[in-house]
Amino acid sequence: MRFKCKDLNIATGGTQVITLHHDDAAKMDLFALDRVNARIGNKETIAIVNLAENHHTIPAGYLGVYEEVIAKLKLKPDDVVDVSLAAKPESLSYIKAKLDGKRLKDKEMNAIVRDIVDNNLSETEITFFVAACYKYDLTDDEIYYLTKAIAQNGEQLRLKNGPVLDKHCSGGVPGNRTTMIVVPILAAAGYTMPKTSSRAITSPAGTADTMEVLAPVSLNVKKIKEIVEKTKACMVWGGGTGIAGADDKMIRIRNPLSLDPWGLLVSSILAKKKAVGATHLLADLPIGHDTKIRTLREARILRRKFTTIGQRLGISVRVIFSDGDEPIGRGLGPLLEARDVLWVLKRDPRAPQDLRKKSLHMASVLFEMLGEEEPKRKALDMLDTGLAYKKMNEIILAQGGKLVHPEDLKLAEHHHHVKSKQEGKVRHINNRIINKICRIAGAPKSKKAGMYLYKHMHDNVDKKETIFTIYAESTERLRQAVAVAKAMNPYTIQ
Amino acid sequence: MRFKCKDLNIATGGTQVITLHHDDAAKMDLFALDRVNARIGNKETIAIVNLAENHHTIPAGYLGVYEEVIAKLKLKPDDVVDVSLAAKPESLSYIKAKLDGKRLKDKEMNAIVRDIVDNNLSETEITFFVAACYKYDLTDDEIYYLTKAIAQNGEQLRLKNGPVLDKHCSGGVPGNRTTMIVVPILAAAGYTMPKTSSRAITSPAGTADTMEVLAPVSLNVKKIKEIVEKTKACMVWGGGTGIAGADDKMIRIRNPLSLDPWGLLVSSILAKKKAVGATHLLADLPIGHDTKIRTLREARILRRKFTTIGQRLGISVRVIFSDGDEPIGRGLGPLLEARDVLWVLKRDPRAPQDLRKKSLHMASVLFEMLGEEEPKRKALDMLDTGLAYKKMNEIILAQGGKLVHPEDLKLAEHHHHVKSKQEGKVRHINNRIINKICRIAGAPKSKKAGMYLYKHMHDNVDKKETIFTIYAESTERLRQAVAVAKAMNPYTIQ
Repeated sequence: MRFKCKDLNIATGGTQVITLHHDDAAKMDLFALDRVNARIGNKETIAIVNLAENHHTIPAGYLGVYEEVIAKLKLKPDDVVDVSLAAKPESLSYIKAKLDGKRLKDKEMNAIVRDIVDNNLSETEITFFVAACYKYDLTDDEIYYLTKAIAQNGEQLRLKNGPVLDKHCSGGVPGNRTTMIVVPILAAAGYTMPKTSSRAITSPAGTADTMEVLAPVSLNVKKIKEIVEKTKACMVWGGGTGIAGADDKMIRIRNPLSLDPWGLLVSSILAKKKAVGATHLLADLPIGHDTKIRTLREARILRRKFTTIGQRLGISVRVIFSDGDEPIGRGLGPLLEARDVLWVLKRDPRAPQDLRKKSLHMASVLFEMLGEEEPKRKALDMLDTGLAYKKMNEIILAQGGKLVHPEDLKLAEHHHHVKSKQEGKVRHINNRIINKICRIAGAPKSKKAGMYLYKHMHDNVDKKETIFTIYAESTERLRQAVAVAKAMNPYTIQ
Repeated sequence: MRFKCKDLNIATGGTQVITLHHDDAAKMDLFALDRVNARIGNKETIAIVNLAENHHTIPAGYLGVYEEVIAKLKLKPDDVVDVSLAAKPESLSYIKAKLDGKRLKDKEMNAIVRDIVDNNLSETEITFFVAACYKYDLTDDEIYYLTKAIAQNGEQLRLKNGPVLDKHCSGGVPGNRTTMIVVPILAAAGYTMPKTSSRAITSPAGTADTMEVLAPVSLNVKKIKEIVEKTKACMVWGGGTGIAGADDKMIRIRNPLSLDPWGLLVSSILAKKKAVGATHLLADLPIGHDTKIRTLREARILRRKFTTIGQRLGISVRVIFSDGDEPIGRGLGPLLEARDVLWVLKRDPRAPQDLRKKSLHMASVLFEMLGEEEPKRKALDMLDTGLAYKKMNEIILAQGGKLVHPEDLKLAEHHHHVKSKQEGKVRHINNRIINKICRIAGAPKSKKAGMYLYKHMHDNVDKKETIFTIYAESTERLRQAVAVAKAMNPYTIQ
């Protein structure tokens, strides 16, 4: 049946949705939540049906279209769209098979992923796929097929020959901004490193949030290619690129129940690396109470999966285990973390030594993977000669940012110093509570908010000595963050 | 944060959804698809966040509300609603536990079901629960807990003491309208039988669709109670009552992948019976190629589950197996089936004998369960004395219908006789194709559409003899249905 379309000026956040008049739906034997094919010219999409309650919003003969549908079909006002009941996609039977414990073949995995990307599967159906992968986990073959499918059914970065480096951190450690030091070091030495990163979900800042203090990070693949060809590297937000798009949808579904089965975890990470053409990958797995990886046993399983599947994808993977029990660096929150990074790159005495040390170690492991003879020396040279800092500035400019002195980064207007009630040694720092305080203070949306830590594990603390300072852009945010800090106390001092 | 609400005049089909302006969402650190608490006075709901693309639809400070939210919060224009990020419901951890293969306890199962009913779980999260129940299936303990929870977290019918009868059919057999004959027979003998039924999903008519030809079937629990207290019985649509509401949501999620694990199947059926206070249940499991139950082995598993779980719920269950390989009766489609039913009740010579025989058998099994001495004779008496027909008329009037002679039921205007191309015996009737023809002809939305079958299995057919007639309300519908009948040919005659 054909309908004139009417822009509803509403976005659903991903799902394709259309709204029909009751009578039209009845004529077509359609119910709310049914799926339809919406077609105009040679463009087509699968959308979910909503029903309009009265003709005030959507008169009979009209089709209410949400932003996602308008974008997909490139609709103009009054365009006529052909709507018909959508057939069930073939990939549904593969999802059912997986739910029954069967092993999926290459082309079956690919069909599922393609249908996820093309919006041919509803959220419920993708959830069944995720649940099946969670329950049975995946064989190495299946992880390989899935990873390939996610990488191939999305945007891909195609660079000239030669090694392409990448790094990954499994996360959970606030302030762990090694990427922004490792990438300039390696690029300064002439290596290619097109780095995509995520924004924070539960932490005070992700690498993309922090880099955004210095330069735009929402760039498309074409622009990324230009930047990397010019400067050898980039640091951008992966979510805006369409790289490994199927994975974004699956992650959103995994989040509410925090489901991280090995198969999905590994394919999610490696697909992004494969899609940018990585040949060498360094994966950092921090192990700690509040990180994703809590035991050495889990870390070892993950290391084996990474290296085995990486090899089949043509990616040489090195995995390091690190201490995830306390934050890295001193600043937490986008701006405070960016300042730490610049201080390390500029060899400023205020640079946090733990961040510098960890970054140098990671850079040297990458140099070693690449066959450099004196990897440690090489990493140190790039940093200490100022070449890495120079490279960082090149990248910032190429991404459209402006150069800035770390001292000129203006912190949030309101702050509060939290002092120790007793004398002693720092015995424990609770990352989860640290995250909570920063988020309530406004990070990462508020770039200038967060915390500055004066004390790390095993440091001595005097009575009334400042342990950390909280920064916020409003007195209300500050008040709330201070209240949480006092009630939950992230530092154990004894 | 507080918002003035704005009616969007759109229904989502179940999910509670609100729309916010971009800037407001940013202020609250909310993303599309996040869940929020929306509160006004002492009413509150959990809703999913959509984002408005511009202030034309939803200006900053306003909350766009869909019909479901308006109904739940009883909103009036310009009401002010308080919105905050919703905490994760505790039941999520039980769903995760089930997904990890753990067995759920009584109170955990109840928490999940309560949160499903209260819209505290997203569709994705309910899907994980369904997937977990599918994979591990449920122990008898778990099925019992789930059934109790579904029955208790919904509307319940509370009648005075004494036996309360119910029946169930696992479905898949077109025309199988025994309910509308069994209920009047038992009620005529003085027994209480408050019957809720479903509408058709894939068949030409459900019992609710067929009964609706004679009387309204969308009644609330209060009204149902009045009718049953007056006439001893009713035949209403279960979906409109709020009885076993959690189950409706789970069924919608199971449908796309046709997932029918025993645990969910049994609890789905028994919860509805428990909620109306049933003490005696007769379950008919047709076994056949195109029915839900395909083998005797499956039927036996289901019989054991029904009786065991029924016993724990205080319901005495009797299970019969029947032949599901061909339609029952002659008319298919709401009006044509209602006519068959009335002919049986009126002992008209045109009454289909297979429908009469099966209904009498079922009624006699129920009488036997109730300890009647001559159950077969009792069933026959109620039908042949006209008492059952009289009772049917009482029920029709009590539900607000008008009495009608079967001859006065006006069939669809357009029809087409399909004749046999050869002489022979009917060797096979394909229920799935029969369903398809009726649906394309317009059933069940179009009450008068459907098929009338002149031939059953093993009947002799002459060349050019009419096998069935198709009825439709438009020539276009008729043309399409005839085309399918010719292309797919539901009868095998040899």
